[in-house]
Amino acid sequence: MKCWRNGELRDADDPAISPHDRGFLLGDGLFETIFYRAGALILGQAHLARLRAGSEMLGIPLPHSDRDLENACLDVAQGRQSSEDLAIRITLSRGPGGRGVALPLTPEPTCLITAGGTPDYTKPFRLKTASIRRNTTSPLSRLKSLNYLDNILARRQAMAEGYDDALILNTEQRVACTSIANIWLVEGNHIITPPAADGVLEGTVRGKLIELLASGPVQVDTESFNLTRLKSADACFLTNSLMGVLPISAIDETSFQTAPVDPIKAHYEAWLESLFEGARI
Amino acid sequence: MKCWRNGELRDADDPAISPHDRGFLLGDGLFETIFYRAGALILGQAHLARLRAGSEMLGIPLPHSDRDLENACLDVAQGRQSSEDLAIRITLSRGPGGRGVALPLTPEPTCLITAGGTPDYTKPFRLKTASIRRNTTSPLSRLKSLNYLDNILARRQAMAEGYDDALILNTEQRVACTSIANIWLVEGNHIITPPAADGVLEGTVRGKLIELLASGPVQVDTESFNLTRLKSADACFLTNSLMGVLPISAIDETSFQTAPVDPIKAHYEAWLESLFEGARI
Repeated sequence: MKCWRNGELRDADDPAISPHDRGFLLGDGLFETIFYRAGALILGQAHLARLRAGSEMLGIPLPHSDRDLENACLDVAQGRQSSEDLAIRITLSRGPGGRGVALPLTPEPTCLITAGGTPDYTKPFRLKTASIRRNTTSPLSRLKSLNYLDNILARRQAMAEGYDDALILNTEQRVACTSIANIWLVEGNHIITPPAADGVLEGTVRGKLIELLASGPVQVDTESFNLTRLKSADACFLTNSLMGVLPISAIDETSFQTAPVDPIKAHYEAWLESLFEGARI
Repeated sequence: MKCWRNGELRDADDPAISPHDRGFLLGDGLFETIFYRAGALILGQAHLARLRAGSEMLGIPLPHSDRDLENACLDVAQGRQSSEDLAIRITLSRGPGGRGVALPLTPEPTCLITAGGTPDYTKPFRLKTASIRRNTTSPLSRLKSLNYLDNILARRQAMAEGYDDALILNTEQRVACTSIANIWLVEGNHIITPPAADGVLEGTVRGKLIELLASGPVQVDTESFNLTRLKSADACFLTNSLMGVLPISAIDETSFQTAPVDPIKAHYEAWLESLFEGARI
């Protein structure tokens, strides 16, 4: 198994990261998780665009073209020598720096690409509302930064109580997301997901679904909602790059039908299938 | 220059961290910064106790005794071959793990110790109030976790506007800390610092100062306060392990006298000096 670091393919099990890397020391960086299937990086352009926008916001140089990063992802994937689906992760940190919080004058970023297996997302998720809130005053609430410990703690708490994931509200009592996914509610013919301002990472599948549904019979909106409205919905579901569209069967003590999600899931999966009818995306 | 990783002294510039380390990938870990002077780890016991408490809270094993960690810190410091003051950093991460947020069943933590120079903290600090707030719903607001990007962004913003550091309020509009230090206000004979519940890391110098002042003529309390009260104080100051006690000369447009901080600073520095009159602490 290989990983890619700053232009070089390396053995994935060798230490590759400096003890002075600000990614390790301070969480000073970003990442993307890209779904790989049969030679294709699904929504690869959207992932790379988001990584580039985040790197500009944080002031971390990303000294590789999209083409180079795509090729690197494919090289790492193909080093796995199997036809399974993969999760390709691109991690970009500000790289080694001097001691402390102050920014290095000339950052030497670390760009690392690794590949892993994908989880089995066939069963609907049961969510537990977390006590940790998403901090809307922080730009990190809208970035896929390396600061993931709140998500880890929220999810650990949910799993300890027998749930699959944590539902995370924001510091203004609105629904934001789960520890790993965007959230949507279904009200009749209307589906809604919270806006970025509510402390939401604008997911790649979220964006694709908004685009796919814009021209169909379902009305799709980004709009704030609270937990009461979510629990009163006809149905609700999650999206992320690896799970695609996944129904929610329970939030806390409230159960949900999953059938209303089926046509949305089918719509997304039809698009995904269509990618493999022609050439590589 | 050497670093120490999981029991081994290594060259500090060699890559020491796995590309799968959750510290690098997810900020899943903690750290301590210990002030080293003339063979002594100042408040070393307090730092190690805090690290151990945090590791228990996060469920990250810390498979080294305090004695082993102290010896490792001293080995790394003495590898610098100079008599300068140092900042010794202990970083504890959950170590390499499988893909994703879910916790590894059997964590293999990474414990890394490095040494760096200390900044020059002779001039009083000028603070700018940050737009990013400290999230009191998250346990991370009270831990020295690897999730430091909010602090980095807040400080970057303050420095871009010509200040030394960011003053960080919490999500309940109270004063919490700066990006790197605890904060205190002086009102006559009374000094106050916010409680941990306000999203505050309980600093080692903060704790020592509370202890030192408990028996003197100054009244010391942990108590919540807002920005208006802080700006109306006679004086205010910062503490952290490397700066000790440092006066604040301005917050936003408000200037402060630093003279009322002098006796407090002198009291702390007398204690620090006293450590070197006898044997090693």
